[in-house]
Amino acid sequence: MTELIKVGLLGLGTVGGGTVNVLQRNSAEISRRTGQSIQVVAAAVREINADRICDTNLFELTDDPVSIVDNPEIDVVIESMGGTELAFDLVMRAIANGKHIITANKALIAVRGNEIVKAAVEANVMLAFEAAVAGGISVVKVLREGLAGNQIKSIVGIINGTGNYILTAMGDEQRDFAGVLAEAQALGYAEADPSFDVDGVDAAHKLTILASLSFGMPLHFERVYTEGIGEITLTDIQMADEFGYRIKHLGIARHTETGVELRVHPTLVPKTHLLANVNGVMNAVYIDADAAGSTLLYGAGAGAEPTASSIVADLIDVARHKQSGLINVPILGFQNDQIDDLQVIAQSEFASAYFLRMEATDQPGVLAEISSIFAGLDVSIEAITQKEPPAGVNTAAISLITQFTDEAKVLKAIGKLESLSQVSGAVKLIRIEHF
Amino acid sequence: MTELIKVGLLGLGTVGGGTVNVLQRNSAEISRRTGQSIQVVAAAVREINADRICDTNLFELTDDPVSIVDNPEIDVVIESMGGTELAFDLVMRAIANGKHIITANKALIAVRGNEIVKAAVEANVMLAFEAAVAGGISVVKVLREGLAGNQIKSIVGIINGTGNYILTAMGDEQRDFAGVLAEAQALGYAEADPSFDVDGVDAAHKLTILASLSFGMPLHFERVYTEGIGEITLTDIQMADEFGYRIKHLGIARHTETGVELRVHPTLVPKTHLLANVNGVMNAVYIDADAAGSTLLYGAGAGAEPTASSIVADLIDVARHKQSGLINVPILGFQNDQIDDLQVIAQSEFASAYFLRMEATDQPGVLAEISSIFAGLDVSIEAITQKEPPAGVNTAAISLITQFTDEAKVLKAIGKLESLSQVSGAVKLIRIEHF
Repeated sequence: MTELIKVGLLGLGTVGGGTVNVLQRNSAEISRRTGQSIQVVAAAVREINADRICDTNLFELTDDPVSIVDNPEIDVVIESMGGTELAFDLVMRAIANGKHIITANKALIAVRGNEIVKAAVEANVMLAFEAAVAGGISVVKVLREGLAGNQIKSIVGIINGTGNYILTAMGDEQRDFAGVLAEAQALGYAEADPSFDVDGVDAAHKLTILASLSFGMPLHFERVYTEGIGEITLTDIQMADEFGYRIKHLGIARHTETGVELRVHPTLVPKTHLLANVNGVMNAVYIDADAAGSTLLYGAGAGAEPTASSIVADLIDVARHKQSGLINVPILGFQNDQIDDLQVIAQSEFASAYFLRMEATDQPGVLAEISSIFAGLDVSIEAITQKEPPAGVNTAAISLITQFTDEAKVLKAIGKLESLSQVSGAVKLIRIEHF
Repeated sequence: MTELIKVGLLGLGTVGGGTVNVLQRNSAEISRRTGQSIQVVAAAVREINADRICDTNLFELTDDPVSIVDNPEIDVVIESMGGTELAFDLVMRAIANGKHIITANKALIAVRGNEIVKAAVEANVMLAFEAAVAGGISVVKVLREGLAGNQIKSIVGIINGTGNYILTAMGDEQRDFAGVLAEAQALGYAEADPSFDVDGVDAAHKLTILASLSFGMPLHFERVYTEGIGEITLTDIQMADEFGYRIKHLGIARHTETGVELRVHPTLVPKTHLLANVNGVMNAVYIDADAAGSTLLYGAGAGAEPTASSIVADLIDVARHKQSGLINVPILGFQNDQIDDLQVIAQSEFASAYFLRMEATDQPGVLAEISSIFAGLDVSIEAITQKEPPAGVNTAAISLITQFTDEAKVLKAIGKLESLSQVSGAVKLIRIEHF
């Protein structure tokens, strides 16, 4: 009665190696849960003789990934090699060969997911990617199944551990961006080329997937408005703190009356909100749903073991469903003919509250001049502060927060502010989220 | 191709009525997700003409619950009537009639679940109870599926909203227990007879279910060590605050080398921990798993809509799986022949850190005497404070926290303390959790 599920791996680095470790260590528990055995039969790697984090004695190593996706013995292919070119070709070929696919590759799903989903539906195979978003957190399952009776209103996440580590350390240790980034690279929390994390691309990949699962829309990575954290200074963090906020790099997907907002940017979050207290490399996703209300899922967003936890959960789903031959849960959580290409809202249509910061000549009347610009655009200022300049400096730092308003108005105000003779340099804009 | 799932309700109060409302409001979304329609065909109620929170025009109302469980047209029975006697008989009869069962009744599952699970397995029907634990939070699904590749080490939850509301308000508003309880009753957050919530019985029901799902053990409500919050005073909360802790009513299930701890009691939680910041009626469950690491699930623990969210999720699971005729996920998350009757650890074998508080004569040498009792039992004191008594009072309040140690030693120390002539009255013990 015990069935055997045979697995082939594409890639045996952190994610693939972690998966082998969890499968081996917890094989008894997995059999107790599924009544089945899951066995890795082969893994494709770039260098056969490289050092590994896992034991490779129990399966075949090959440097030919095509041999994995063509192997008739293999039921499930785990793609953990990364990238969107070779990985795409291999996944498509595996699907054509009738294999179920599990991947941790957020870029692949975000950028080429629509094609892959279509192929998987046509081939009647499962395509699972719990590990692609927020590591060990079961957010894909909660959106596709746990909240399936809800209309999802918004999903707001800290979904890039590296960025959250940097912002947390800047605030806790009162250090600047460059110093913390260098330290994060030394500790292995940030890549040598940190741009995917720091520029928000990784978070935008994950947000693309979350939005699709929340609202039943196609994957539209190219439509995500994305700002990184590279411009956030210690002064921003200090001024936000004085207003009662912490700065977090958020991914935000929100269903509004006019469409869907998809945006990734640094954001002021009230200090008392749970998301403001998600620190270091941890991830969290905050979901607002019409029946369940507000829920939060928190956990490790990356790392060999948490990512493997999600891959193995997907494997167990495949094992549990394989016997029936029916795919019960649609790939994007909605029936494939019910995916709706919702309007994605342009930046010019965003609405939010805003934090603005600028340097201005320390002379009488400057605050009045600034205030009148906002009043003329019908934007209410919630609070404004002016810091006395240090001795010998003749510009003062002025920070303000607005009430909820149209971004277009705030951008117009910034144009006017920057043309004032008293304001020097650019005006910094950071959005504020209230939940 | 659209299939119709026909539902019968036992009870149409907060939970049943909320379920009808969510099914009606979100019927389009549910069809988009499942490709099927879910229709309530009949509901059994005590009083046909009572006021309802939902529209009852689209289905039959009856005062004969047996007619629901015997109705050959009905696929799924939702038990939302409460209690463990009539509800048990009706659920067993529905199972015998081949109906799938969804229930929000934690008492029923915790107290009679082993019999019901056995019957459901034999009849090959689904038995789902996401709504029985932590309202709209998908913790049952996360334990049975999302973390299925893990060995669960512990699960610690704030799983009774009423108790959390009372403790939160006592701390925030510096009020005493009786006053806050009376207010909670007036606001509808606490029942007229609050004993299920205040005494910890409701939390113990939920902990029973969580432990079974986490460790693959039978439901053993009768073995849960349970303390309520009725003895917690404002002074306890204030002293805990000075040591850096908040007091939360926790359910704790922990797999140790010698067995499983199952306990519900007031607990000191470090202020910086996320669980210490779960306030008011909100619930949260903190899970420590070997691969995923620490994860937290947070959300509304009760109320018509959050509870309905979980019931409808279970309905969608039934709808999605019904076509295959195969039950993919076992009821308790482990194969039915793999449920293991783990040893439940007795209070005498508990180990923890402890907060103790006592009144002692304000005379020299009393701290030395107290300290020597702990030293003689090899228990390390982490911190100790003595409050000067107000004028005219000659006993001082002494509070201390111990390091992690055996509860048996601490109970022995309390016996010795209470026999000291300088100590008046009982010594208060509250356990401390570090995560």
